[in-house]
Amino acid sequence: MASPSRADESEDLAFLADYLVRPDPLDPRLGITVAGVDQGGAPVETRVVTERALTLYLNAQEIVTMMTIGDHPEHLAVGYLLNQNMLKPDDVVTDVDYDAELDVVVVRTERKTNYEDKLRKRTLTSGCAQGTAFGDLMDVIDEARLPHAELRTSWLYALTHKINRTPSLYLAAGAIHGCVLCERDRPLVYMEDVGRHNAVDKVAGYMHRHGIDPADKIFYTTGRLTSEMVIKTVRMGIPVLVSRSGFTAWGVELARKAGLTLVGRARGKRFIVLSGAERIVFDQDLAYVAEESAKHRRKGASDKEGADD
Amino acid sequence: MASPSRADESEDLAFLADYLVRPDPLDPRLGITVAGVDQGGAPVETRVVTERALTLYLNAQEIVTMMTIGDHPEHLAVGYLLNQNMLKPDDVVTDVDYDAELDVVVVRTERKTNYEDKLRKRTLTSGCAQGTAFGDLMDVIDEARLPHAELRTSWLYALTHKINRTPSLYLAAGAIHGCVLCERDRPLVYMEDVGRHNAVDKVAGYMHRHGIDPADKIFYTTGRLTSEMVIKTVRMGIPVLVSRSGFTAWGVELARKAGLTLVGRARGKRFIVLSGAERIVFDQDLAYVAEESAKHRRKGASDKEGADD
Repeated sequence: MASPSRADESEDLAFLADYLVRPDPLDPRLGITVAGVDQGGAPVETRVVTERALTLYLNAQEIVTMMTIGDHPEHLAVGYLLNQNMLKPDDVVTDVDYDAELDVVVVRTERKTNYEDKLRKRTLTSGCAQGTAFGDLMDVIDEARLPHAELRTSWLYALTHKINRTPSLYLAAGAIHGCVLCERDRPLVYMEDVGRHNAVDKVAGYMHRHGIDPADKIFYTTGRLTSEMVIKTVRMGIPVLVSRSGFTAWGVELARKAGLTLVGRARGKRFIVLSGAERIVFDQDLAYVAEESAKHRRKGASDKEGADD
Repeated sequence: MASPSRADESEDLAFLADYLVRPDPLDPRLGITVAGVDQGGAPVETRVVTERALTLYLNAQEIVTMMTIGDHPEHLAVGYLLNQNMLKPDDVVTDVDYDAELDVVVVRTERKTNYEDKLRKRTLTSGCAQGTAFGDLMDVIDEARLPHAELRTSWLYALTHKINRTPSLYLAAGAIHGCVLCERDRPLVYMEDVGRHNAVDKVAGYMHRHGIDPADKIFYTTGRLTSEMVIKTVRMGIPVLVSRSGFTAWGVELARKAGLTLVGRARGKRFIVLSGAERIVFDQDLAYVAEESAKHRRKGASDKEGADD
């Protein structure tokens, strides 16, 4: 797999200046080098991403212990609570404290949240608060009012090309997912994590804490277009969801119900739209992309090694 | 992607007779054909896998609602409870009832389980029973006594070659994970699901309900070698875990602690062993595999499209 440094040398990466946040593959806390043997029995060293437990509290209530690579814990915490519908728009977050020693993050709100009350009642009869919260999430789909927007195919190709060339843990170590908040042809916020759900929650947390308007944004994920990804994208108010991966039936059904534009299997020249195709503007000369896509395919080979799972 | 029927015609699939259970990609309940548009705006039809909610009860206790493709709900239910440490070896399962109308599966035990008692206490202070149960799982690693066993590289190449050619939802629709219980060079039980955790739980449930000895088995997964996969494999008592995907640092650490043989990035000719290399017997002529691996790579391209995420 291409190392970030080699990627830097190989191509003009001026577009990296457009990012508000992007991966730091050289952060020593996010990966380690381990020794092993290869198929011939010869010793090899390889880079693997870290995975650590982070326990989330909402005020005094323990919510969940998450497995994460460990960067952006404050964004992850707020995004998780938002996407689980545990934080409502009228809940005012007063403070987010991360304790690196204890691997604990505490989100404090002005007054006790509805969710904390519900939780106490419900956990008497429900084994898992997540399962319970999930029910509420379906309301998000039914009540969805996603804005008019457009996705030009020229933007789509520019985005995937830029994202594939952005130095990341994905290129450096593999076995990790990425989510990227984009505007037109510019990637803005690129978060990674072992679980795709964490990567998307980090973006949601960043958007909420920085008051970013979702209406004109495009959400890109390396992960599959499952019901979970669709629900979270709709919950964030973003009208367009793009992935290099495939679809699930329920993901497609929910996207159509919510009026979300769903673009999948976006690799090189090809992609498929299974919902909200009215937002797509086909302005790209495909003959040009055909040539570009050869590079994408080569990149794709190493990309996909990382994206598996 | 190759359709199951084309795969059947293209190569000798006599080895399929060795399977105790294998995917049924033609089962209409497991996938649907949906209409969309391609990159040129032309109408296309594509196959996508189903994803439905299944609520699990342990006796009278609601445990969790899982998203699953819906096959083998009884195996999934028992395997989930085992791998979450909610069923102990001394718990006797008397009955497993699946209600297709309600999408509910109930696992009944001779007497009330420890876990049900613990759950009532713990959910008062913990938001998620899964998070709580996870703590107990670490004991599984500390107490692990995995058997002596061997993994011949000739078996490994035969297994990946057979698994890649087995008709599956993976080849037919993509966006799905597979887990395969193997013995020597023979795949025995091949389960698929949207979430890799469900696929592994189905295998665990099958093994428990059919009293299959794990000591001489090899576990193959399309998913990454995370802490979760390692813990579940050790919990099942299987000494060897193989994946076409990559590793996480904690997955490697736990595998080494438990003495589990961990083989990753197994594609075509190549693989890497990061734990338990003493079980590997390098008996394969790599020159021969080099030629075979070209086919694997081509298959890999479509495989990986499905395995992403």
